[in-house]
Amino acid sequence: MTRPPTTPAPLPLAEDWGRLAGRALDCCLEIAACTEVPGQITRTFLCAPTHDAHARLDRWAASLGLRTREDAAGNWRATRRSDRPGARTLVIGSHLDTVPNAGPYDGVLGVVLGVALMEALRDVSLPYHVEVVGFSEEEGVRFGVPFIGSRALLGTAEALLGVTDARGRTVAQAITDYGLDVNTLAEARLADDVLGYLELHIEQGPVLEAEGRPLGLVEAIAGQSRLDLTFTGRANHAGTTPMRLRRDALAGASAFVLATETLARKTPRLVATVGSLTPLPGAVNVIPGEVRLTLDIRHASNEVRREALERILAEGRRIAEERGLSFTHALRLEEAATPMNPALMTLLGKAMLAEGHDATPMVSGAGHDAMLVGQVWPAAMLFLRSPGGISHHPDESVLEGDVEAALRVGARFLRLLAEREEAR
Amino acid sequence: MTRPPTTPAPLPLAEDWGRLAGRALDCCLEIAACTEVPGQITRTFLCAPTHDAHARLDRWAASLGLRTREDAAGNWRATRRSDRPGARTLVIGSHLDTVPNAGPYDGVLGVVLGVALMEALRDVSLPYHVEVVGFSEEEGVRFGVPFIGSRALLGTAEALLGVTDARGRTVAQAITDYGLDVNTLAEARLADDVLGYLELHIEQGPVLEAEGRPLGLVEAIAGQSRLDLTFTGRANHAGTTPMRLRRDALAGASAFVLATETLARKTPRLVATVGSLTPLPGAVNVIPGEVRLTLDIRHASNEVRREALERILAEGRRIAEERGLSFTHALRLEEAATPMNPALMTLLGKAMLAEGHDATPMVSGAGHDAMLVGQVWPAAMLFLRSPGGISHHPDESVLEGDVEAALRVGARFLRLLAEREEAR
Repeated sequence: MTRPPTTPAPLPLAEDWGRLAGRALDCCLEIAACTEVPGQITRTFLCAPTHDAHARLDRWAASLGLRTREDAAGNWRATRRSDRPGARTLVIGSHLDTVPNAGPYDGVLGVVLGVALMEALRDVSLPYHVEVVGFSEEEGVRFGVPFIGSRALLGTAEALLGVTDARGRTVAQAITDYGLDVNTLAEARLADDVLGYLELHIEQGPVLEAEGRPLGLVEAIAGQSRLDLTFTGRANHAGTTPMRLRRDALAGASAFVLATETLARKTPRLVATVGSLTPLPGAVNVIPGEVRLTLDIRHASNEVRREALERILAEGRRIAEERGLSFTHALRLEEAATPMNPALMTLLGKAMLAEGHDATPMVSGAGHDAMLVGQVWPAAMLFLRSPGGISHHPDESVLEGDVEAALRVGARFLRLLAEREEAR
Repeated sequence: MTRPPTTPAPLPLAEDWGRLAGRALDCCLEIAACTEVPGQITRTFLCAPTHDAHARLDRWAASLGLRTREDAAGNWRATRRSDRPGARTLVIGSHLDTVPNAGPYDGVLGVVLGVALMEALRDVSLPYHVEVVGFSEEEGVRFGVPFIGSRALLGTAEALLGVTDARGRTVAQAITDYGLDVNTLAEARLADDVLGYLELHIEQGPVLEAEGRPLGLVEAIAGQSRLDLTFTGRANHAGTTPMRLRRDALAGASAFVLATETLARKTPRLVATVGSLTPLPGAVNVIPGEVRLTLDIRHASNEVRREALERILAEGRRIAEERGLSFTHALRLEEAATPMNPALMTLLGKAMLAEGHDATPMVSGAGHDAMLVGQVWPAAMLFLRSPGGISHHPDESVLEGDVEAALRVGARFLRLLAEREEAR
């Protein structure tokens, strides 16, 4: 049975959007000052300065009438309840932890924009609850395992309580050290009927800038495989071993790096990277007898990624055979691609078009909370252009005009979603 | 004025050569037991076990009537004087120090064969003095500077007395610690009229084995250049940076490694090696923004080496330009080639042919005492085949038959040299 639509309420005026964007950016910079390392932005999972970041968000959220709390996983939560009977919940979130020596916007901007959207729509009645979440852990820095915050929201963090950090403290101990009660971890799980998850995040890559677009509609988070590879030849004296008698593992590995690049260039939207490469023994006057290297390969299609990986490994075997080397590989990590929810993508795309933006879908090459959450709830993701493609670096930035554009699109998306929920 | 030839004396019988080779190899193994590191062969400059190695050589040399001493640089010296008036001196030598965890033959075999040759010719009158030298330092392990022993013989070691080892001890202190008088260093200089220098040494490379030859006639010690190179691009996220927008320093460096290999393969007898290569930051999920690598390039001709180096650096610049990278290089070491003395080479070649060996000249890609000494005195060098090309490793070996062949050739060379000196 369809209920009558709520009375349309006015959106902010043009100048209000600019003010709101400025306020959001100021908030990001204030949160950036909450750091473990003076002079840097470093805020790992459950470090003490996280309290200050939460306090900053509390002030803004409280001024909007949101109810805030810290759950037992250290996630910051702010809730706006709808008075509609049987209302479902929209989660808007991103993370508040950072890599070491980070920029001010990775993750943080998405949380702050969640609050800013609540300000933009404070006078608009919505037929769904909204829960804005600042995830406590996404980067995997402290415990080597990412997504501890979003796992807690999904109720799957228990298994990680025994994992230890570099100093031997467990996740459970870290929760206690921070001043939370690990016994209430189950209450961090969001038990509501969730209609969807929205994440706004800087792109952390150069694509939108190269295409002159402020915003990007994410269609999937790429799946990825990471491998450890080894080429083994024979170490020998660089002066006494003629070229024809060499079995140079580094020459083989170099051919492999180039073959990988060539294959990735030929395969649309595939990225493949050799990021680490170590020749042994690594002396100026010794022909490398062994090279250890890593491969990181990503694509929105699991099938395309797996096929490309097979072809790259076949190249490795061919190069090794040609050069009298041996070649081994071991899978270190494999994550399937996470498609965004088609219905939410359609709504977000409509909002972008209505605001005058190109809504051509793009793939996220990086992992995000939407990757974990999107396996359980319908998820949508909006990217903001990253100047210079720079992220995970103090020079990370975002354009104020792009933030304003994201707020306008976000608010329009929330209203389109309201129309859809009204019509349910 | 020509003097009448000395009465020909009998060379050892066939079975004696085999016995002498066996004795030389036993002596190498006994010296190998004089080590700083139990279970390994490690005997760096002026370490205490050097005393034991010298004592072992003393016993054999004394049985042959040679006069032995330790000079102030720790060189072992054994002298056989000719009774011919105005006799000049032939130096036969190699080094007694080792790299860490070495094999038993690098250097040591050449010293031991010098003594063995004195045994083979003990009943032969020679018209020149012979000084067998076991150089105390050739590898450069302890003080980072090689050839301290041969520099002392040439009278050019004074300048190194202040150089310090890893524990901050100077060369002068090391000499005192070992029990020698640094004030007598000048007496280590060989003031005789030197007619030549002969060094027998394992090849430390695979060439003789590949060609099925036990012995090699060295025509030159290769010159070498060593460089530090850097390719700089832009570090970026491996997931979010499309292939077309990358400036991957490792892909550039890989192209450079292959271009270097191709050029070296095309240039006869050139060897060029990239032994060390470090991508930065070196993380599995980051495109390398910088790669630091080394280049080691060697050839018997200084001109060929310098031309090849220019072409390799031009390749580096071309690759960098093609890929939007920058490329820098800095010369770290340059050593000119040292040709062996043509007259001594001719005599040594004659001795090889007379003993049924191929006397095709070859180049030594590694440095040897003959490199230093050969800049002042006429030098000749005979290589013994290295099974598997293995050296600087506990598996280093030598074939007993090859040692016997080297003794026969060496003795014949000494007699040909005697004829030449008689005819002076």
